[in-house]
Amino acid sequence: MGKTRFNVSLSLDGYMAGPDQSEENPLGIGGMQLHEWLFDLEAWRSSHGESGGVVDASTPVVEELESGYGAVVMGRNMFGPTRGEWGVDPWRGWWGDNPPYHTPVFVLTHHGRETLEMEGGTSFHFVTDGVASALDQATAAADGRDVLIAGGASVIRQCLAAGVIQEFWLSIVPLFLGSGERPFDGLSVLPSLELIDVVSAPKATHVKYSVR
Amino acid sequence: MGKTRFNVSLSLDGYMAGPDQSEENPLGIGGMQLHEWLFDLEAWRSSHGESGGVVDASTPVVEELESGYGAVVMGRNMFGPTRGEWGVDPWRGWWGDNPPYHTPVFVLTHHGRETLEMEGGTSFHFVTDGVASALDQATAAADGRDVLIAGGASVIRQCLAAGVIQEFWLSIVPLFLGSGERPFDGLSVLPSLELIDVVSAPKATHVKYSVR
Repeated sequence: MGKTRFNVSLSLDGYMAGPDQSEENPLGIGGMQLHEWLFDLEAWRSSHGESGGVVDASTPVVEELESGYGAVVMGRNMFGPTRGEWGVDPWRGWWGDNPPYHTPVFVLTHHGRETLEMEGGTSFHFVTDGVASALDQATAAADGRDVLIAGGASVIRQCLAAGVIQEFWLSIVPLFLGSGERPFDGLSVLPSLELIDVVSAPKATHVKYSVR
Repeated sequence: MGKTRFNVSLSLDGYMAGPDQSEENPLGIGGMQLHEWLFDLEAWRSSHGESGGVVDASTPVVEELESGYGAVVMGRNMFGPTRGEWGVDPWRGWWGDNPPYHTPVFVLTHHGRETLEMEGGTSFHFVTDGVASALDQATAAADGRDVLIAGGASVIRQCLAAGVIQEFWLSIVPLFLGSGERPFDGLSVLPSLELIDVVSAPKATHVKYSVR
């Protein structure tokens, strides 16, 4: 049986994305800075269709994060910047024709839509009956591998409150964002945690926790 | 010339103290948990008049935090749970007759009061004309050693906004508090940071940042 897990890059003031998400600012204003530690890494670039890049202490963390899962759950705002009905030329994700997931991805939305088959094994399934249903479908699809909760903040918060998370990595980034989306704001349940790993890298401090 | 610095133990949801501070709960409800990594340490116990204790990876961090400063600045709520006028039998701090500071401590308050001389070299000076004045007085008193900003959240926030902090340690504790005091909430200025050290200890992850 796989784990249900997530990972987020967090500013010191606790934000995983900036405010005012838009097509120009997928991670909200200033949010891209939270992922700068990733963009130069060969491990990240190769899984996003780019060549070159560096190897540093973050590499094994990224390799762990990007492997071992068999399905993904994400919120609609993580899937795209559009809201409401999908319309005649609906949004197909931020990631081009070959998204980096290569598994079924269950997108939480209030607006139903046909499954979207992409290249490379990624398919987007639109789930309108809530996070528990999305988790059930993802667990079945993962077939014993992990279920990755990709975000955003609201989905992570709901999954923590529902007690389904077994493990998560925080990548703590040395900056203040000032505003945006906090995954750990207004938690209705406070899970007990255990510190299980720390990796000190040049541009982020990665800390892994398990939920007891 | 010494540095102006602070250090806080922070929950994953960004709190350095719980809500509803009182004489029974100096760090707010649940806040004491944030410091559990400290209480067993010989380095902490010896500076608080207790014998015994353990040595672990946190020890050099505590030794660094507790040495090298020549003056302290703190807010009134860190000094005690009373509010308003000091009254006829005024509060003398949480720390007994021999507080662990052994230097002048400048307490920000709206209510003036005579300087309080304690045992072991600690003196409490009550500053009614604002944080800039307290910092000036502390810098003069420190005489080339560091100025320690002891807290609470509001004083740390004001000092970050004023651009006077050169360095800080976060001790990131594996728990969620759910509510309380966040030092990095509503920052009016967002200082640029550099990650300078990480110490992985059993019950906390210590990360040191400098402000550019």
